[in-house]
Amino acid sequence: MFSTFGTLFRVTTFGESHGRAVGAVVDGCPPRLPLREEDIQPQLDRRRPGQSAMATERNEADRVTILSGIEDGLTLGTPIALHVANRDTRPQDYAAMQDIPRPSHADFTYRVKYGVQAASGGGRASARETVGRVAAGAVAEKLLRERWGIEIVAWVSAVGEVECSAVDPATVTRTAVDRFAVRCPEEQAARRMEREIGRVRAEQDSLGGVVSCVCRGVPAGLGEPVFGKAEALLGQAMLSLPAVKGFEIGSGFAGARMRGSAHNDRFVWKDGRLGTLTNRSGGVQGGITNGEPILFRVAFKPPATIGRPQQGCDYAGRPILLEAHGRHDPCVVPRAVPIVESMAALVLADLALIQSARG
Amino acid sequence: MFSTFGTLFRVTTFGESHGRAVGAVVDGCPPRLPLREEDIQPQLDRRRPGQSAMATERNEADRVTILSGIEDGLTLGTPIALHVANRDTRPQDYAAMQDIPRPSHADFTYRVKYGVQAASGGGRASARETVGRVAAGAVAEKLLRERWGIEIVAWVSAVGEVECSAVDPATVTRTAVDRFAVRCPEEQAARRMEREIGRVRAEQDSLGGVVSCVCRGVPAGLGEPVFGKAEALLGQAMLSLPAVKGFEIGSGFAGARMRGSAHNDRFVWKDGRLGTLTNRSGGVQGGITNGEPILFRVAFKPPATIGRPQQGCDYAGRPILLEAHGRHDPCVVPRAVPIVESMAALVLADLALIQSARG
Amino acid sequence: MFSTFGTLFRVTTFGESHGRAVGAVVDGCPPRLPLREEDIQPQLDRRRPGQSAMATERNEADRVTILSGIEDGLTLGTPIALHVANRDTRPQDYAAMQDIPRPSHADFTYRVKYGVQAASGGGRASARETVGRVAAGAVAEKLLRERWGIEIVAWVSAVGEVECSAVDPATVTRTAVDRFAVRCPEEQAARRMEREIGRVRAEQDSLGGVVSCVCRGVPAGLGEPVFGKAEALLGQAMLSLPAVKGFEIGSGFAGARMRGSAHNDRFVWKDGRLGTLTNRSGGVQGGITNGEPILFRVAFKPPATIGRPQQGCDYAGRPILLEAHGRHDPCVVPRAVPIVESMAALVLADLALIQSARG
Amino acid sequence: MFSTFGTLFRVTTFGESHGRAVGAVVDGCPPRLPLREEDIQPQLDRRRPGQSAMATERNEADRVTILSGIEDGLTLGTPIALHVANRDTRPQDYAAMQDIPRPSHADFTYRVKYGVQAASGGGRASARETVGRVAAGAVAEKLLRERWGIEIVAWVSAVGEVECSAVDPATVTRTAVDRFAVRCPEEQAARRMEREIGRVRAEQDSLGGVVSCVCRGVPAGLGEPVFGKAEALLGQAMLSLPAVKGFEIGSGFAGARMRGSAHNDRFVWKDGRLGTLTNRSGGVQGGITNGEPILFRVAFKPPATIGRPQQGCDYAGRPILLEAHGRHDPCVVPRAVPIVESMAALVLADLALIQSARG
Repeated sequence: MFSTFGTLFRVTTFGESHGRAVGAVVDGCPPRLPLREEDIQPQLDRRRPGQSAMATERNEADRVTILSGIEDGLTLGTPIALHVANRDTRPQDYAAMQDIPRPSHADFTYRVKYGVQAASGGGRASARETVGRVAAGAVAEKLLRERWGIEIVAWVSAVGEVECSAVDPATVTRTAVDRFAVRCPEEQAARRMEREIGRVRAEQDSLGGVVSCVCRGVPAGLGEPVFGKAEALLGQAMLSLPAVKGFEIGSGFAGARMRGSAHNDRFVWKDGRLGTLTNRSGGVQGGITNGEPILFRVAFKPPATIGRPQQGCDYAGRPILLEAHGRHDPCVVPRAVPIVESMAALVLADLALIQSARG
Repeated sequence: MFSTFGTLFRVTTFGESHGRAVGAVVDGCPPRLPLREEDIQPQLDRRRPGQSAMATERNEADRVTILSGIEDGLTLGTPIALHVANRDTRPQDYAAMQDIPRPSHADFTYRVKYGVQAASGGGRASARETVGRVAAGAVAEKLLRERWGIEIVAWVSAVGEVECSAVDPATVTRTAVDRFAVRCPEEQAARRMEREIGRVRAEQDSLGGVVSCVCRGVPAGLGEPVFGKAEALLGQAMLSLPAVKGFEIGSGFAGARMRGSAHNDRFVWKDGRLGTLTNRSGGVQGGITNGEPILFRVAFKPPATIGRPQQGCDYAGRPILLEAHGRHDPCVVPRAVPIVESMAALVLADLALIQSARG
Repeated sequence: MFSTFGTLFRVTTFGESHGRAVGAVVDGCPPRLPLREEDIQPQLDRRRPGQSAMATERNEADRVTILSGIEDGLTLGTPIALHVANRDTRPQDYAAMQDIPRPSHADFTYRVKYGVQAASGGGRASARETVGRVAAGAVAEKLLRERWGIEIVAWVSAVGEVECSAVDPATVTRTAVDRFAVRCPEEQAARRMEREIGRVRAEQDSLGGVVSCVCRGVPAGLGEPVFGKAEALLGQAMLSLPAVKGFEIGSGFAGARMRGSAHNDRFVWKDGRLGTLTNRSGGVQGGITNGEPILFRVAFKPPATIGRPQQGCDYAGRPILLEAHGRHDPCVVPRAVPIVESMAALVLADLALIQSARG
Repeated sequence: MFSTFGTLFRVTTFGESHGRAVGAVVDGCPPRLPLREEDIQPQLDRRRPGQSAMATERNEADRVTILSGIEDGLTLGTPIALHVANRDTRPQDYAAMQDIPRPSHADFTYRVKYGVQAASGGGRASARETVGRVAAGAVAEKLLRERWGIEIVAWVSAVGEVECSAVDPATVTRTAVDRFAVRCPEEQAARRMEREIGRVRAEQDSLGGVVSCVCRGVPAGLGEPVFGKAEALLGQAMLSLPAVKGFEIGSGFAGARMRGSAHNDRFVWKDGRLGTLTNRSGGVQGGITNGEPILFRVAFKPPATIGRPQQGCDYAGRPILLEAHGRHDPCVVPRAVPIVESMAALVLADLALIQSARG
């Protein structure tokens, strides 16, 4: 259930860490869109772990194969199946975990839900599942760019207590974002974030963070009243990502502290169309895009797996001291950047096609 | 499109401010559930505007009628159609609005989207649409209470800059919440909130706020991996409400500033089952409920309609000074309390039925 | 569950015989379509029982009210709720039925499924449920006619053993169909059918029949590959009607007896487009409309309720002699004509909107 | 669009003839079901063309690989991705077809719909697409057998004018069906069918036929009122198969010629439960299974590709004589047998899970 997302641009993802492959089926992509594996691979490469240190491996891992839906470099309008082989063999590390629910992981809840558990514990709650989303999202992005000129850029706006504040959503680019491994385009903040991550790694701990995202060039009129409001679907999309605890659009929680006279976005005439002077709405009014950039922020909790020992108990309630082995990523928000972009693309592609039908 | 929500417990709402009625069709409610109009009316009454001042009118307005799906006080398992008549006639106030898009309202986006506009401007973006949700949510709540013993309580935790902090989610009740018109169960904060609202009203302005919600007694195992995570559907549900700009579950945005060692919820044995010592997860791990209370917060922006004059322009871009007439609610979060509860109930009823199917 | 049909043009029906009302919510109808209750009423009138004998009652019964989605005679693009009051009070006739499952009715299966039973026995299996479909179908028809010039005409092509054969699908009209109460546009066959119905009524028995339908002016390209083939959705739509036991498109079961050389529809140039010389395909190739008229036939079994005594048993298995009281319609296919048209309209409206999105 | 089927047991298929692979993703299969590739392969083998003559190839072709959703031979409850490689290279035969729409094929309609055409012409209308359905159907069958003891058997009941009549749906087995290559379990009819196919092949023509199917052991209570009636979903499922022109359940079109007194299925007590003496209903009453075997029939038109020359025209309307090259199957109904079984299994698995949720 619920491995499918979207109404007209519809994505189904599959795969756990320890099966043969992960991937996605994209159904509903319009025909005649130029599409090759090279359109998809870059975002998969950005999603991969350990990119800074392991550059040589980059071209071999997580290679996408398009199994169907394409001929002579064009989409056929039929389902596009995307396949990425798993290369992990089942690590011994997990064996010990079978009797102990890791704190703030999905081990316990998957066991209760399914009465069975994948070797890796949380099964589909694993970050590995997002490979399929990123591959599908790249297809959606291609469509949005070619047909509507939409561009989507996400960046790390906070790592733990370190925040960046000077990023201009009107101009920020992926190139600027990728200049630093931490994917914050603001140099000073980026350096402080990297230091903070280094410190936390040394302490065998982990850190949360915030990813901000802007969608530019979105035409007015996208989003469906009531349950399909643009912010509702973006919220669902982002909160469906592992480790996400919060979502806000436009003024977000800060808006709740404001007065209407200060919050309202005044309409003005700009660039030959009706626009707004400020953008506290974050590009949506009444759930429907207004032609201004869509702006939202996604809060990620710190990764649950940490090197330092933790108190816990086994499934029978017997107290136990947990120690994780192996290498763990102390902060996942840099890798979350392309994932957030992908989910935004899936939402917008679907809403754009739905609005087209209204003709 | 998208006036339907849910997979097995499925709700379709209908109605604008100026048609004959608003309401909902609930499809998928199990049979043999005791259900009468009196089960639904109280939440509709709590949703109504002007409750403190207009107590005498309370029993006449927004009366729900069950059109189908019930016989001899029991559900039949067939669609339950819920009907609430509109009593407004079209106010003259709106006539002037036809040529001017109100700032931060849905007038402009609805016009772009549909090429036509309801008299009231934003059509389905109106708060009136939530009547159907609340009626349907009351049916969902009845099911959750009878079959699983789940209870849902929401309250106002912030109005503008005034926050309350001493509410205990484990024990808070609707009775406590309703003790103050502002629906904050903490007396001192409630009084300050009410003063703040009075001040803002006097200044012909409006105020945002935050609604917090707890769902107690939710069994572990609800929520579907990937796109149907409990927090993803709760997020969609809440962000589909008018004026909502943010959603967070458990630690939320504060969690993004934390370290893993401080954020992880330690497993302990309690009440004969595996539980957690803290609840930063907000009752979900990997998108699936863990048996702890679900805790989330919803940010509402200040109402866009304010009495004081605002700069704006008409659809042709000609600058204009807007002045709203009539009575306007300067702060909607107290009324949002039953709406948030209703949406939470719709999400949980759906997830509970889906998990039942897994048997 | 499953009271909703369609993806973009989406209909939810509600109501049993003995509740307050029956009706439907149409979600996804495009905005700016002229629509009034008078557009819907005629098909409801055609659906009503006893039309020939009870002409005076006609204008009072089954009056549709549009509750929402319309303003100034135009659709708003929001859900259109359609309401038809029930006027039946619960008849005493049914009381005796509570302990005895009527043969070939839905009494037994509803009781097993739901563990509860509507007074009328089969609940939503009742013909009364089709009121909502017909009302919604009239909206779909209006859209199809205005936007694409599509027209849909159904007629009775068989009653029991009596078949008509000379109807030309290219030219048959509703006026011609309605010339005879039996709704067969071929005079000689119509008279024989009416005699046959009279005979069966006198014998307190009932009769099955076949409804044929043509959809003209359907553009090529509608229908979705695989599970959304035009014939698959038409088949689902028709087989979802009470008493339907068979569906065939184009050559149908007769086609299964043919050779390819005789069955293939030769392409020719006609009217400035590619067409086919014959139409054994029934207007679809590979599930997608080809621009030729869609032709299909629907088989209805004889009504299960008959006046003559029948052997049966009660729920405990005790043999019993059943006798139905009251007036029963010995042949329902004439009334099924507008219902078949309505379901065809719902399918085509949905497919047409979906194809628009592909633009 | 519409490459997904089902609500709780949900299948998405992908793939054309000339891509890298075909397959399916099964979402919603309950956890802890024993499942291996060997459970799926037999139905894929039965689906393959040329089985009688090419026995040696059988074990190499159309091998299914399970990419996800399984661990240690048990389902995890997560999506099961099924992959079958394509081995065809693009045949030269098709090149000539690019400018000529083959009669009664999907070439023309796909071109109109998508404005682009797969090398093989009809893209997803190809029989190759059914590989994914059969693989997914085998998973559904495993579930139905293990959890409810349901068994599904289909057979060829007519080839052209040759019909078989003595098959007992209560006892027929797949072993009996597979005794003859034509998959008719009745020896005399089977031999006549095979002769008829030989004759038609010699004449470079093709033949239609009928597949009958029985589902035994189906509990009473499956099927959803209104649009989800068991026969409606079975009808959609079967009419979504390539070349199907008709579907009937129970008495079908013959029932339309009957009187109610002869058609009604008398209730009797049998095997400790309420049953019916006859089964003209085909196992469903009011759209819901009644515990009797489900019986239905599916009409397949003759394959459109024939060796003998046919008149036609190109896309510009210029008359042309078409001649197909290569080997063509003159009668596909024997291969359709496992496909029909698979689609029936998909429908029943979904309805059974939905009814479980009603608990």
